[in-house]
Amino acid sequence: MEAVAIVTGLALLQLFVFAFQVGKMRVKHGVKAPAVSGHEEFERMFRVHMNTLEQIVIFLPALWLFALYVNPLIAAGLGLLFIIGRFVYRASYLVDPGKRSMGFTLGWLPMMALLIGGMIGALLKML
Amino acid sequence: MEAVAIVTGLALLQLFVFAFQVGKMRVKHGVKAPAVSGHEEFERMFRVHMNTLEQIVIFLPALWLFALYVNPLIAAGLGLLFIIGRFVYRASYLVDPGKRSMGFTLGWLPMMALLIGGMIGALLKML
Amino acid sequence: MEAVAIVTGLALLQLFVFAFQVGKMRVKHGVKAPAVSGHEEFERMFRVHMNTLEQIVIFLPALWLFALYVNPLIAAGLGLLFIIGRFVYRASYLVDPGKRSMGFTLGWLPMMALLIGGMIGALLKML
Repeated sequence: MEAVAIVTGLALLQLFVFAFQVGKMRVKHGVKAPAVSGHEEFERMFRVHMNTLEQIVIFLPALWLFALYVNPLIAAGLGLLFIIGRFVYRASYLVDPGKRSMGFTLGWLPMMALLIGGMIGALLKML
Repeated sequence: MEAVAIVTGLALLQLFVFAFQVGKMRVKHGVKAPAVSGHEEFERMFRVHMNTLEQIVIFLPALWLFALYVNPLIAAGLGLLFIIGRFVYRASYLVDPGKRSMGFTLGWLPMMALLIGGMIGALLKML
Repeated sequence: MEAVAIVTGLALLQLFVFAFQVGKMRVKHGVKAPAVSGHEEFERMFRVHMNTLEQIVIFLPALWLFALYVNPLIAAGLGLLFIIGRFVYRASYLVDPGKRSMGFTLGWLPMMALLIGGMIGALLKML
């Protein structure tokens, strides 16, 4: 389970770095709080962070369900793929939001594998 | 606890479906990323998803606190009510945002029962 | 662990109160859903809530990692500091968004201590 805990921490650190970069863009482009629009580059990083927030809310419980009911090491491995997918998503979104789908899918596939796998594992244990 | 795990998975699947429907509305109404406004129907689905995200962040820990410190089967039952409430919220918000309060309350009541119940359970166990 | 559960519940209650106050500002200033802008005071409270949501998604898993792999009572204490920091953040943001950094830092420091500490604890246990 320690490997799952460390992957959890890494995903949270990534989310924090993305939030920090939103703050940097805010300063760079003079987007004054509470505004969340006004400059394209700021808005892109803002959406990368928000989308990663949306995903991590699904990812973390799915990671732990899979770890508990299927296998913790496979969970940790799929979790690392999710984190890599999110970095690809960020990089491609900042260059061109229209090209964000590959990075999205790279993070989405391991996340769905964790979620569906974890649910099946819990179901099998219950029956 | 397996029932709680499955309800967790169902709530996450619902959140994912809502996110997917935001993406569909984005394409349907030509709202190009990173924009998150520009068409009323898109904005409604966007807010349904965001509000469900806000709620699930409270709901999931509350569900597990209640399961651990009160009763896992009652937790799972209240969790199902929360998920139903969110579907009602989505349906009414898309028709008319002014009529979203009943669906909101249907999801909110079991969520608060889980949160307050779970906290009281933990408090009683500590004393 | 009960102390950690209660701090978890308190942080969730705080997030709920912030969400409730966003709703009150919505009514007060006539910002009709699905709009999330249109009045400065509403937008400030909206951003306070969103930022607290972003933080709690990191805070709660970090709190439990620290409790599991380091010490539950220290975790609960750092968690209370996080909650206090968020109240200071809210108060200063509503007065002047430009003065939000002290409250932000007050919540951010214990959160990062929980995250980094929890990861180190898990790493040491694995080795």
